[in-house]
Amino acid sequence: MKSIDVCLTPELLHLHNIENSIVVVTDIFRATSCMVTGMAHGIGSITPVASVEECFALQQQGYVAAAERNAQKVAGFDLDNSPFSYMDEGLVGAHIAMTTTNGTLSIAKAKASAVKVLVGAFLNLGAVTNYLQSQQYDVLVLCAGWKGKVNLEDTLFAGALVEALHDEYMIAEDGALLAMRTYQQAKDDMLSYLATSSHVRRLQRLGIHKDIQYCLQRDLYDVVPVLRGSALVCA
Amino acid sequence: MKSIDVCLTPELLHLHNIENSIVVVTDIFRATSCMVTGMAHGIGSITPVASVEECFALQQQGYVAAAERNAQKVAGFDLDNSPFSYMDEGLVGAHIAMTTTNGTLSIAKAKASAVKVLVGAFLNLGAVTNYLQSQQYDVLVLCAGWKGKVNLEDTLFAGALVEALHDEYMIAEDGALLAMRTYQQAKDDMLSYLATSSHVRRLQRLGIHKDIQYCLQRDLYDVVPVLRGSALVCA
Repeated sequence: MKSIDVCLTPELLHLHNIENSIVVVTDIFRATSCMVTGMAHGIGSITPVASVEECFALQQQGYVAAAERNAQKVAGFDLDNSPFSYMDEGLVGAHIAMTTTNGTLSIAKAKASAVKVLVGAFLNLGAVTNYLQSQQYDVLVLCAGWKGKVNLEDTLFAGALVEALHDEYMIAEDGALLAMRTYQQAKDDMLSYLATSSHVRRLQRLGIHKDIQYCLQRDLYDVVPVLRGSALVCA
Repeated sequence: MKSIDVCLTPELLHLHNIENSIVVVTDIFRATSCMVTGMAHGIGSITPVASVEECFALQQQGYVAAAERNAQKVAGFDLDNSPFSYMDEGLVGAHIAMTTTNGTLSIAKAKASAVKVLVGAFLNLGAVTNYLQSQQYDVLVLCAGWKGKVNLEDTLFAGALVEALHDEYMIAEDGALLAMRTYQQAKDDMLSYLATSSHVRRLQRLGIHKDIQYCLQRDLYDVVPVLRGSALVCA
């Protein structure tokens, strides 16, 4: 039987053996929600990089570059971290380089030893579920968190995926149980559940309530971004 | 306003600034439940140490020594890790040295920079709550977890303390919210909630269901073990 586990922050990834696992990286507000949205709207590829410097170097090579730190766009880059920016018709077929505070760092950490790295969000929850069911590997959901600490929204997504898969997968450890039960508690009204979370308060101060509501919608897109070499493409 | 936060495993402690905080270490199954039980039954002091070697050195100096690894007593030591072993009349006034897989390591990590280190368990939840309310410091609940990973039972205790204090304390981050909501979901029947957790399954294989039920009782004792120098004594 395949197993599923959850790593609540990239700071704990070294405790997990992922050599036989597909790692699903999630950063609901907003990196992986942007990636899924972009892929669903025809973006050619997204190259996630850990640092602003690497992102700038790719911009110099012709990539459309998106750099976010502390939930805001870094000066000099082309795209911000709102999913609505990734629906632009001008980006169809484009190659994007992206760095974010938490999400792209998690992808960089996971790709060193995982079998495959996928990108998950509520927007493609069902598509990711179906893809994983078609594979023979164990699953680790890696929550990007916030600067090493856990956050509620990524834990909720992890729990949603555990709930979707737990009939066919063995739940490996308490991290996965904790996430699943948190999701079960929250799933009927995630927006209210998250209203007092630290990142939602942070984002609301920035006036991006519309992004929050958008990112909490389930199954809007049937795409699964998967890392091939250094770029995310559609599976 | 004072703040309260939760660190779900000692692997994440470096992300928290605890220079103005009292750290409450919890390891429900079973280190801190043993410590609270022992203090309530008249043990003179408990010196938590991180390694089996340090524990042995103190045993040579005349301490009653308790060493546990992987939920079992290490050969050559005097006491195991069952709270019922800490009710022995022969231990009244005794000085105990203790090392456990997770709990004593967490105490060692916390004492480097915290204002004070307390030991908390469901058994002394109310006493710890009252003690913290009498102090002017912020609070960090440090869950001992299991070998660096999160576990459900320590998260539940952390949540119980956040719930008890959240009217007077600001909830600092999502770790504390996650713990509180998990506790609110579980509190009416923690035994059932924990039935599928990894450590409960591990302990049940060892045949210590009685310990589990005992450790989930709230407010059995009005003692607060606090670290003075290298030893825990009653506050």
